[in-house]
Amino acid sequence: MNQNQYPSKLIEQAVEEISKLPGIGKKSALQLALHLLKRPEIQSVQLASSLVKLRTETKFCSRCHMISDHDICGICSSTKRDGTLLCVVEDVKDVLAIENTGQFTGLYHVLGGIISPMSGISPNDLQIESLVSRVEKGNFEEIIIGLSPTMEGDTTAFYLTKKLKEFPIKISTIARGIPIGGDLEYTDEITLGRSIVSRVIYE
Amino acid sequence: MNQNQYPSKLIEQAVEEISKLPGIGKKSALQLALHLLKRPEIQSVQLASSLVKLRTETKFCSRCHMISDHDICGICSSTKRDGTLLCVVEDVKDVLAIENTGQFTGLYHVLGGIISPMSGISPNDLQIESLVSRVEKGNFEEIIIGLSPTMEGDTTAFYLTKKLKEFPIKISTIARGIPIGGDLEYTDEITLGRSIVSRVIYE
Repeated sequence: MNQNQYPSKLIEQAVEEISKLPGIGKKSALQLALHLLKRPEIQSVQLASSLVKLRTETKFCSRCHMISDHDICGICSSTKRDGTLLCVVEDVKDVLAIENTGQFTGLYHVLGGIISPMSGISPNDLQIESLVSRVEKGNFEEIIIGLSPTMEGDTTAFYLTKKLKEFPIKISTIARGIPIGGDLEYTDEITLGRSIVSRVIYE
Repeated sequence: MNQNQYPSKLIEQAVEEISKLPGIGKKSALQLALHLLKRPEIQSVQLASSLVKLRTETKFCSRCHMISDHDICGICSSTKRDGTLLCVVEDVKDVLAIENTGQFTGLYHVLGGIISPMSGISPNDLQIESLVSRVEKGNFEEIIIGLSPTMEGDTTAFYLTKKLKEFPIKISTIARGIPIGGDLEYTDEITLGRSIVSRVIYE
């Protein structure tokens, strides 16, 4: 029995499947499997059923493409949100992150990815057509492009601004700069450079 | 929607179940859930089924209490192992760890825990009776107590030596000392003290 052999086929299969998850190697997977073996059976059964249900029953909002239990998600159907403000994000996670700040009261549009020729993701793979038709029909006054300041993010932002410039709507992007509490001295050059170029004038 | 609210009940349930696993918080659980949502359905289904199978179908060796696909495990039934040498360990993980060293050719006995009054684990909760009857019936010449050098480990080792001293068998424990490659200067005092007391004389 060497490092790659397990005492049981069932352990081996479980380790195989668990270690497909991001950030979990074979060693952690084995620990999780051995942990489950020590816990009551109901825990494994509930974990398994929640994973299958999650994957097979989760729906997406037909308007903003956010995860939702209903056809239209809680944010899109809320009367308390600012219907003139739309924030375009890459992913479900970004909506959760922005919601956690409590600073945004508008609506979202989840692209489902960003344009990345390296990973074979083209504009057609994203929810861009539905964004354009949503903007066309809606009464938005400003669209905030909330994408990561990476090469792919910037490419996607550029593509979106081109697509959206036919509409008489303000287009903005989230501010890039030195993180709050961050030390100027230890900020990387590109961020520091950008934060000087896009400096904010005191009013 | 605040930090404790999820966009969907299904996500919430999955996060709840995943975060019961050791070392996985709510944040990592959410990331794993969102990851599964992006992957093909078959991955979630296979993961779930392997977890249920693991928990419901895994058997333990009736002799050494190691995880096994059969009534008697591969190590116990092997003719290549030294049947006169028995290593007593706390857990399934310890068997895997010792097997990985390739330095041990004897048999194992998995206690399934260690004596811990703090956690309410008494000798009766462990496979100690079956160890004694195994030693009684077997033809072991040496029993190695392979427990961690903690207070509970030492207590358990003390209990086992008392139980086993009626048999004319050598009882030993795995060596404690400075880890190979470890720096003497940075070794904690207790380990260093022990490694001086149990020094090995050059032959």
